[in-house]
Amino acid sequence: MIKRRLTVLRSAMQKEGIDLYYFNTSDYHMSEYVPEYFRTIEYFSGFSGSLATLLVSMEDAWLFVDGRYHTQADQQCLKYDIKIVKLGTQDALEPLEFIKKYYSDKTIGLDGKRTSIRFAKELIKNGIFIKSADVYSDLIENRAPLSKDPVYELSVEYTGLTRKRKIEMIRYVLKDRVHIINNLESIAYLLNLRGNDILHTPVFMAYLVFFSNDIYLFADLERFSEEILDHLYEDGVIIRPYASYYSFLETIRGKKILVDETKVNYETYVCISRGHNTIQHMRSIVEDMKAIKNPIEQRNFRLAHIYDGVAVLRFLMWLDSVDKSTLTEFDVREKIDGFRKAYKANDLGFSSIVAYNENAALMHYMPDRDNSARLNNKGILLFDTGGQYNEGTTDVTRTIALGETSDEIKKYFTLVLKSMFNLSELKFLQGLSGNQIDVLARKDLWELGVDYRCGTGHGVGYNLAVHETPPNIRYGKTESGGELAEIKPGMVFSDEPGVYFEGRFGIRCENMLLCVSDEKNEYGQFLRFETLTMIPFDLKLIDPRYLDERTRRILNAYHDRVYETLLPYLNSEEANYLRKLTREI
Amino acid sequence: MIKRRLTVLRSAMQKEGIDLYYFNTSDYHMSEYVPEYFRTIEYFSGFSGSLATLLVSMEDAWLFVDGRYHTQADQQCLKYDIKIVKLGTQDALEPLEFIKKYYSDKTIGLDGKRTSIRFAKELIKNGIFIKSADVYSDLIENRAPLSKDPVYELSVEYTGLTRKRKIEMIRYVLKDRVHIINNLESIAYLLNLRGNDILHTPVFMAYLVFFSNDIYLFADLERFSEEILDHLYEDGVIIRPYASYYSFLETIRGKKILVDETKVNYETYVCISRGHNTIQHMRSIVEDMKAIKNPIEQRNFRLAHIYDGVAVLRFLMWLDSVDKSTLTEFDVREKIDGFRKAYKANDLGFSSIVAYNENAALMHYMPDRDNSARLNNKGILLFDTGGQYNEGTTDVTRTIALGETSDEIKKYFTLVLKSMFNLSELKFLQGLSGNQIDVLARKDLWELGVDYRCGTGHGVGYNLAVHETPPNIRYGKTESGGELAEIKPGMVFSDEPGVYFEGRFGIRCENMLLCVSDEKNEYGQFLRFETLTMIPFDLKLIDPRYLDERTRRILNAYHDRVYETLLPYLNSEEANYLRKLTREI
Repeated sequence: MIKRRLTVLRSAMQKEGIDLYYFNTSDYHMSEYVPEYFRTIEYFSGFSGSLATLLVSMEDAWLFVDGRYHTQADQQCLKYDIKIVKLGTQDALEPLEFIKKYYSDKTIGLDGKRTSIRFAKELIKNGIFIKSADVYSDLIENRAPLSKDPVYELSVEYTGLTRKRKIEMIRYVLKDRVHIINNLESIAYLLNLRGNDILHTPVFMAYLVFFSNDIYLFADLERFSEEILDHLYEDGVIIRPYASYYSFLETIRGKKILVDETKVNYETYVCISRGHNTIQHMRSIVEDMKAIKNPIEQRNFRLAHIYDGVAVLRFLMWLDSVDKSTLTEFDVREKIDGFRKAYKANDLGFSSIVAYNENAALMHYMPDRDNSARLNNKGILLFDTGGQYNEGTTDVTRTIALGETSDEIKKYFTLVLKSMFNLSELKFLQGLSGNQIDVLARKDLWELGVDYRCGTGHGVGYNLAVHETPPNIRYGKTESGGELAEIKPGMVFSDEPGVYFEGRFGIRCENMLLCVSDEKNEYGQFLRFETLTMIPFDLKLIDPRYLDERTRRILNAYHDRVYETLLPYLNSEEANYLRKLTREI
Repeated sequence: MIKRRLTVLRSAMQKEGIDLYYFNTSDYHMSEYVPEYFRTIEYFSGFSGSLATLLVSMEDAWLFVDGRYHTQADQQCLKYDIKIVKLGTQDALEPLEFIKKYYSDKTIGLDGKRTSIRFAKELIKNGIFIKSADVYSDLIENRAPLSKDPVYELSVEYTGLTRKRKIEMIRYVLKDRVHIINNLESIAYLLNLRGNDILHTPVFMAYLVFFSNDIYLFADLERFSEEILDHLYEDGVIIRPYASYYSFLETIRGKKILVDETKVNYETYVCISRGHNTIQHMRSIVEDMKAIKNPIEQRNFRLAHIYDGVAVLRFLMWLDSVDKSTLTEFDVREKIDGFRKAYKANDLGFSSIVAYNENAALMHYMPDRDNSARLNNKGILLFDTGGQYNEGTTDVTRTIALGETSDEIKKYFTLVLKSMFNLSELKFLQGLSGNQIDVLARKDLWELGVDYRCGTGHGVGYNLAVHETPPNIRYGKTESGGELAEIKPGMVFSDEPGVYFEGRFGIRCENMLLCVSDEKNEYGQFLRFETLTMIPFDLKLIDPRYLDERTRRILNAYHDRVYETLLPYLNSEEANYLRKLTREI
């Protein structure tokens, strides 16, 4: 079937004079997670993972996947004669390098609506001829529809700022420039609206063009109630059909336009380039504003983490009471998701990771009904889970003992926990960025010659995407450059060092932090972090030989705070259980 | 007298149609330390400090100085009606900002040979009209001459690489581009030559133009022996008179030329701009090569620090044996300088800092014969000193007790020492830069709300400038960007956190570090630092309450290494004394 689909695709390519067609896993908005509608790579290759690039030529097809998908890609695609390019292995070329090397004098087809300006420019800069054409949409049978669910408002008791006020603030910075936004989280944030279009990320499909006078929102009108339409109208937001966005862009002429090249699609760029506009690349002002949680959002975020703490505590109590050998990872996943939804969460924050022993060494392992390890009353279980609340988004990882464990596991658990605290307990002078503090969470692991091959932390949205930027806590460089953005009071991010020993075990400790002001003196303004997460760490995994005095003190203080904070929300049985988990060591 | 000099200067300015004349403390080579010849600001304002900007208009004169010179500038210049702009205080404008605000529509005169391309471009970018003219040289009476001392060769047993080999390596990277160098240390390094032109920095005045075939050195021919001239000729270096440099530049046409805008003067830029050349800004390839000490340089550097350790040990023994109340800081300075010169040093590395109690809180305090505090048999003494050896350049700071001290001093000493070790004991994955590890040396001080208002460390030359870049260990940004350069094996730099409490006391601990390779495994190449400095820390200043177990272990291991390393160079009395200083705690 896949082979037939590729044949049909190739005829369509030929009609357009395309030698090689480029597919990615993004949508029209450069989203990390996307609606089912955009699972094009799965349709044409069989590969169901979340991140990949597919290149199709007249004779061949290549699927580019990173380490977590090497095996899966083999299983799903080799049978269709698709070549798997295993990124991270020797000689494996990145798609751009591959195109430069083998197709530099050919015509590369791509969907300009699903390609960032940055990537398209990269191709052009390398002398590659690209043709923006959606040759595939007409070929897809039974395509999953886009969501028709209503868009809803998030009231000011949750957002902290009215839509009107946010618009005023952006307008003040923007002056007479035009700002085009494709990013769904930024649009949802700015308009205090939420939707249901992407699993676990409460956004809705839309484009936005911000002029000094008017704001044009391109979205599916039928999904807005009369009431919301009235509110938008009052605040100067003019709504237009989603499909009319690109033709509207053609009418913008002689303006200075701000776009984030990494988050706006190439088709947008092509359209506005025709109008004698000056186009300037800049991280979205809305994104910078969204990154700094306002006082109401901060207060709510604390509440969301209390709710989250209660739900996870109930899960831990349940798990403690059952025979682990009767459970699979998937059973546990269903259970923890259930506790969150049964309490206060609107939704999960992302698809839950529950991983037993060696499965936890796979950084993005996710069990499902058909593919899930059976637990036992020994070893360790890692769960990385979170919720969507009106009061914020949570993201937490705990690694717990299901029974007996090894000294080695305890040693690494103790060091990972210490590493997490090394970052969270920092007091620092304002002006630092995420790439300047990352070293704190790694140094104790580096001392043993161990590293984790990912960032230490990512920004977290407020009832939005669980991965947000800025900030970004990592020592390496990213396309968005969030790791170079100054860390400011009000920013919220995760702190999640870990160790991953393939085929053996994985350990991660993750708390969410809020940046707050500390003292101001002759040296300047000091900042520190407030830990938002309210969930105990498993004391059974601590090896006192690796627990220095400072870390012990910090852990005990944290556990006391968790107990005191959750107590008003617990019944006496839960309170007793939590007291035991948070006992002083 | 100063007033009369300014009057004469103003007539010269008027003749050239200049409204405001800009003086800085640099030379023709953008050097940090300069020959006497370039003390122009002192001639026209009376100010004798090492760093300042002087702006002279038809009516007024403004001297811009940073915090360490606020008082001195008042004392030396107010009497001549010169206005002191105290940088760092409220509303004080930087020279560039001052010019933009008050002289944007006027003609600014400057000596293009003493102004970096970067600064001149900054002015031009801001729409300011500049006129490059040396209006002052003809006015200076009894000007100190430039050095006529011979230039000498440093043999390959010290440099590790022959001149020929270095030239080949640069040529390999440069290909058909031209590289112009003004920086004196880079020229001395590349040619394995040294001179005597700048106090404590063994360089000689020269410009260098590196073509793919020939290398032109512009310097005072009389200072080179026949033998050196022969050697230079053999290696393809053509020597021309120092004064012919600018007219030579006019002959370069249609080339691609690399210059470091921050280290090449504006006059150079003007000259090469006329020749239809393509001018590209880039940190000098020679500077990058110089930063990475080769194996012979590394081996020698270790030796230089042994010599330095022996000299300082002898000084400590002497100091221990005398009544401190009979000494001034200047006496101590003469003594420590004497011990270095009497043993192996060719020269001091820089003017020695010896500061008692509150004087140590002034970061750049330097006692002289007329201005020097009397010591006593209590309190603390900070000395920041170093030597120039054929085997390298040293830079070390120790803070020692002269008798009884306070608990507060011990607390901060212990924390400063710990902070120094926090950086020096880091093991890390290759790829980090100085601005990513600076936090390690500050975090324990920040925890108490204290900071030091300078970088944590600077690169150190090999028998060259004591301040070299890259690398640069600091969290803020500098013009050279050395803090963003990757730290690589072979780099040598200082590690010198401190505390400075105005009017009370100052503490600094400084060791020099060499970056070396550690293990390479599946996570990548790990690096660490080898401490080069071989001088004990004063155990009397340690407060065990602030000394964590790890720091205690590190300190003891360091002291053992100092003892073992210096032992072969000591007589038995010295060995016994050192054993006492390095005893286990």
